[in-house]
Amino acid sequence: MDSIRRLGNSHRWSDVVIHRGVARWVEVAADMSVDSRSQIGQVLQQIDDTLVQIGSSKQDLLQIQIYLADLAEISILNDVWDSWVPAGHAPIRVCVQAGLGTGCRVEMIITAAVPEES
Amino acid sequence: MDSIRRLGNSHRWSDVVIHRGVARWVEVAADMSVDSRSQIGQVLQQIDDTLVQIGSSKQDLLQIQIYLADLAEISILNDVWDSWVPAGHAPIRVCVQAGLGTGCRVEMIITAAVPEES
Amino acid sequence: MDSIRRLGNSHRWSDVVIHRGVARWVEVAADMSVDSRSQIGQVLQQIDDTLVQIGSSKQDLLQIQIYLADLAEISILNDVWDSWVPAGHAPIRVCVQAGLGTGCRVEMIITAAVPEES
Repeated sequence: MDSIRRLGNSHRWSDVVIHRGVARWVEVAADMSVDSRSQIGQVLQQIDDTLVQIGSSKQDLLQIQIYLADLAEISILNDVWDSWVPAGHAPIRVCVQAGLGTGCRVEMIITAAVPEES
Repeated sequence: MDSIRRLGNSHRWSDVVIHRGVARWVEVAADMSVDSRSQIGQVLQQIDDTLVQIGSSKQDLLQIQIYLADLAEISILNDVWDSWVPAGHAPIRVCVQAGLGTGCRVEMIITAAVPEES
Repeated sequence: MDSIRRLGNSHRWSDVVIHRGVARWVEVAADMSVDSRSQIGQVLQQIDDTLVQIGSSKQDLLQIQIYLADLAEISILNDVWDSWVPAGHAPIRVCVQAGLGTGCRVEMIITAAVPEES
C-alpha cells in the first residue's frame, strides 16, 4: 500500500489528502460575510496557499470542480479566475449551481499533482 | 496500459473501478423507503462493506463527495458521519445539495486507496 | 514531479489534463440549440472523439460524473447511454440534477486511463 499523507486537525475531514503524487482538497472562503467576488478571491488565494504548503504550484493543478450558489455569478467567477489561472497550464474546470451552506457563495474541489516525498 | 479491475454485474455501470491503486465507486442506500438518517447509515455501512470487498479499509479513504437532497439534513449527516469517520485518517469531504432520484436522500462518490494486486 | 500533458487552447481551462496515466476532462454539447437527447448523444460522441485523440478507448473509462439540468430526463440519458457504454467495461457513474448554463441540458466530467508516453 502506498503511503497516504493527510493535513489538517479536524476530526470530521482532512484538509488535504495526498496519495501517489495527487493531492485532493476542498476550499470555501474563510470569511463568508463578504460578497461573491471576495469569496471567490479568497478561495483562489487559499488554493495558492495550500499549493505552497504541499510543495506544489499553480502550474500543477489538474482539475477544479466549482459549485456556485448562483450560476448567474459565473461572470464574476470568470473575471477573477482569468487573472488567476496560469497561462498554458490551466486545469480542467467544471462549474455548476448547487445548494451550498448558509452564506457560502462558492465551493471548490481541487486536484493537483505534487512531487512525491523521497 | 495499467490493468483496470471492475466489480459488479450491471450493464449500465460498474459498482467499483480500480486503477493504479485507486478505487472509485458510488453509493446510494439499498433501501430508500427509510428516512435520511437511516439512508446515511446504510450508505456508510455499504462503504465499509465495499472496502472489505476490495481489500482496503476506512483508513485508506481519500475523498468522499456527498450530495444531499436537502442540505438542511447536514446536521443528521454530521451526526452519523462523526461516529463513523476514523480519527486521524479522515478523507477530504465535500457536501452540497443537488437533485437526486425519487426517494433518494443521499448519494456519495468515494475514492479510496487500495493495495495493488501482486 | 511527473509530467502533466494538457490539451486545448483556451486560457480559461484545459480541454484535457493527463497525469500518471489518468486523463480528466469535461464535456458539454458543442451544439446546445438541440434537445436533451441530441445533447446527450453529442456529449457521448465527443467522449469517443477525445478518447481517440488521447490514445485511450471506451474500455478504459474509469468514472463519469453526470449533471442533468432536469433529472426527469434520466430515462433519455439511460436510453442513449445503454447503447453506448461498452459491455463488461462500464465506468462508475453518478448522475444528479444541478444548475447548468443557459441551454445546457447535460454536462459530464470524465476520468479515463491512458497509456503513458514512453
